[in-house]
Amino acid sequence: MSSNPTFRPKARRPRGLIDRRGADLARERAIVDKVLAVYEAWGFERLETSAFEYADALGKFLPDQDRPNEGVFALQDDDEQWLALRYDLTAPLARFVAENYEALPKPYRRCAAGPVWRNEKPGPGRFREFWQCDADSVGAPSAAADAEMIAMACAAFEAVGLERDRFAIKVNTRRLLNGVLETIGVPADDARTRLTVLRAVDKLDRLGLDGVRLLLGEGRTDESGDFTKGAELPPPAVDAVIGFVAAGRSTREATLAAIEPLVSGAEEGRAGLAELTSIAAILSALGVPEASAVFDPTVVRGLEYYTGAVFEAQLSFATLAPDGVEHSFGSVGGGGRYDDLVSRFKGQPIPATGFSVGVSRLAAALAAEEAAKVDGPVVVLALDQAHVADSFAMAAELRAAGFVAEVYLGGAGMKAQMKYADRRGAPIAVIVGDDERQRDAVSLKNLKLGAALAERAGDDRDAWAKTRAEVQVEVPRAQLVEAARAMLAAPQAE
Amino acid sequence: MSSNPTFRPKARRPRGLIDRRGADLARERAIVDKVLAVYEAWGFERLETSAFEYADALGKFLPDQDRPNEGVFALQDDDEQWLALRYDLTAPLARFVAENYEALPKPYRRCAAGPVWRNEKPGPGRFREFWQCDADSVGAPSAAADAEMIAMACAAFEAVGLERDRFAIKVNTRRLLNGVLETIGVPADDARTRLTVLRAVDKLDRLGLDGVRLLLGEGRTDESGDFTKGAELPPPAVDAVIGFVAAGRSTREATLAAIEPLVSGAEEGRAGLAELTSIAAILSALGVPEASAVFDPTVVRGLEYYTGAVFEAQLSFATLAPDGVEHSFGSVGGGGRYDDLVSRFKGQPIPATGFSVGVSRLAAALAAEEAAKVDGPVVVLALDQAHVADSFAMAAELRAAGFVAEVYLGGAGMKAQMKYADRRGAPIAVIVGDDERQRDAVSLKNLKLGAALAERAGDDRDAWAKTRAEVQVEVPRAQLVEAARAMLAAPQAE
Repeated sequence: MSSNPTFRPKARRPRGLIDRRGADLARERAIVDKVLAVYEAWGFERLETSAFEYADALGKFLPDQDRPNEGVFALQDDDEQWLALRYDLTAPLARFVAENYEALPKPYRRCAAGPVWRNEKPGPGRFREFWQCDADSVGAPSAAADAEMIAMACAAFEAVGLERDRFAIKVNTRRLLNGVLETIGVPADDARTRLTVLRAVDKLDRLGLDGVRLLLGEGRTDESGDFTKGAELPPPAVDAVIGFVAAGRSTREATLAAIEPLVSGAEEGRAGLAELTSIAAILSALGVPEASAVFDPTVVRGLEYYTGAVFEAQLSFATLAPDGVEHSFGSVGGGGRYDDLVSRFKGQPIPATGFSVGVSRLAAALAAEEAAKVDGPVVVLALDQAHVADSFAMAAELRAAGFVAEVYLGGAGMKAQMKYADRRGAPIAVIVGDDERQRDAVSLKNLKLGAALAERAGDDRDAWAKTRAEVQVEVPRAQLVEAARAMLAAPQAE
Repeated sequence: MSSNPTFRPKARRPRGLIDRRGADLARERAIVDKVLAVYEAWGFERLETSAFEYADALGKFLPDQDRPNEGVFALQDDDEQWLALRYDLTAPLARFVAENYEALPKPYRRCAAGPVWRNEKPGPGRFREFWQCDADSVGAPSAAADAEMIAMACAAFEAVGLERDRFAIKVNTRRLLNGVLETIGVPADDARTRLTVLRAVDKLDRLGLDGVRLLLGEGRTDESGDFTKGAELPPPAVDAVIGFVAAGRSTREATLAAIEPLVSGAEEGRAGLAELTSIAAILSALGVPEASAVFDPTVVRGLEYYTGAVFEAQLSFATLAPDGVEHSFGSVGGGGRYDDLVSRFKGQPIPATGFSVGVSRLAAALAAEEAAKVDGPVVVLALDQAHVADSFAMAAELRAAGFVAEVYLGGAGMKAQMKYADRRGAPIAVIVGDDERQRDAVSLKNLKLGAALAERAGDDRDAWAKTRAEVQVEVPRAQLVEAARAMLAAPQAE
């Protein structure tokens, strides 16, 4: 034990982290399994890299750069080198591909699932550890690879159980906005202004068009009085950016037509149009509905490493939380083309594109809709420690017949054991007291029916006594499995 | 992109970590799925806690305390509090139970799987991140709970595909050695001597009985000349400990009989005997064979938090590595009773017991035996970018029919595309060139048969030309799926 036995640590989980169990955890695991199954069916091979990387290999691409360590959790190895917990699954992939480039098939198609960590300020629904489930094609230069990502993302959301009208993949390419900026005279090497414009557009959801307009111009003062400096574009340039942002139409073709005059004066703009035109053709060939994959000029994505097409998956439904407040779930996934992330290591062009499902957020969205009721195990009581081996034998028989079953292993009496079975959500409690043992019998109590009838009987003692007879049956020991099957098959109280 | 575009980081994974993919990764995942399925069938509920905890909550129970941070990876939060990556799944469970004690069913039965991290010196086969898969009963004081762990561990190893004669759970209890120490006059509160004795016995595998004898006495000088101070027991006390360590017999009953005279003079010794006697009764009732669960006085387990029964899972086979060296795999899991780990937070007794499968080591052991050959996806070539949508449509048809299928998405020509299909382990390449397109046909190449025949043909050009005709077929476009099915069903070249 610890060298200081009188020290008593406080049992608390670190800020911004959660413990997951029961139905919540099962829902997350199911999402990961189903999405990975789609990725694998499309020919993506699984890869697992470690939780941390050398900090310089991960790079600094997070939007929230005013946080300590620029948004990552860093730690130092005993040889003084800095390590950092991965903040996504893409940066470690870039390191892996660069390290193993010669031996890999090209394009290299990999999928992965796992937790990522961000050293952000925790808040309601905003955690510092969450799961992602990604697919990426590295060494795939064509817009066909981007289109494949979008179509596969649709297949993944459908596999998770979302009907086609309940989600949409919003698609854009950074090259279009680059085209607008080129047209209005922002030099291609003015990285600061370009980044400020990107971040302003990225805040559209939160600030609306007027707020974005301020951030494109002189700047904006928020409710607390803090001033954020703007991109300092002149008013006609601000109008041009806002005009582009507002160019979304109801079909992919109509949006392309609306964007075309705004960007076609610049080379980057024409390249962006050609990209989206190719993507549109393949999406149509694959039968991806207009409502599932939407061209949307407002989509930017926060991560800095994207160079072309960007994707963002949004749910098109809101749900009521227990407190009656309506929640819109926003982004439940995203991705895009990142042609420089692997090149950064290799010094040669290695184009890549990928998509990531935000598992934890998607699970939260599905949970809010679903009243999940998962049965607990059959609990075999252990009323006499001298006969606990008999209880184990009954649990083993039930498991062999396909039930989830366990023996009560605490030290308490009958009443506490029944309470335990209730807390576990057990559908059935198996009871062998002295009486049953003498008769070589076993009693089964239908806990779900019992709870329903007890609620109906209320304080009526006669009704209560009658329900007892209905919910508990005694059968010969040899008929345990048969009786448990019959009990679960019987109609429950309404 | 990064603020310094000329900086080129080196692509290397941190020391002591591995990237896992393909068959290796699939094997690990399969082990986790199968073991968790057993745990869940026995009524253990899944829990996932986060990768890190407050350092004081994790505590310091690792054996390798001369390493920096005493074997853990530590990091500091921005509010200056120290965090540490979990080194096992048990310490976070203790925190979780203590934090949520009132709301949990008691006993609380939970299972979990995930990576853990140890800041140890990396070496061959010794990694700093590895997976564990655990089940624990918290609030379960009886030896029945320990016996359940042992029986369930056997079920888990069988579920993974190990026959009963290929593994053994070695069982001991720390109370027996405490009884020996009490008998030879080591005071119960002399924690330092007790720990030194435990560590000496734990080195039996590596140092043999003579080495352990030295460490129990004055100390031992290793090959490099380094001196390790011993427990400084007098010679008769050393003999008593060695006598206990050597008391293992071929059945559980015979071992109990051999141990009894060595420990029954001390209260702790009698308690340990009673524990193992109860465990033996339940194991027999559950039909756990003698060879699967063995009482073994040499088992100690390195973690400090164990207070009673300890378990260690060992494989009973060795395998030949590709270099011809025989590898024995040693421990592939373990566990035991830790009655003070939760109490540490709560200040009240909360007995607990658990078992952990060492997933990564078990996977390595199974891999060494198995020549896993997993087929890659069917690869649909994309020879003409103008018709890439047709390639996508063919891949979609194949997937709908149950094949794993993908479209080649690189920018290279026919030859490189075929090489890609080979590297991906594709069983079939689907080819539509101009000729096929004019005839509304599609060619399928049987890559596995092709490789086998090419090897047989060697440099014989006539034989080579003949094999070509055998391995490639052209069929009408509408018969793609049918032809692919027929090709995989056809007998392969021997």
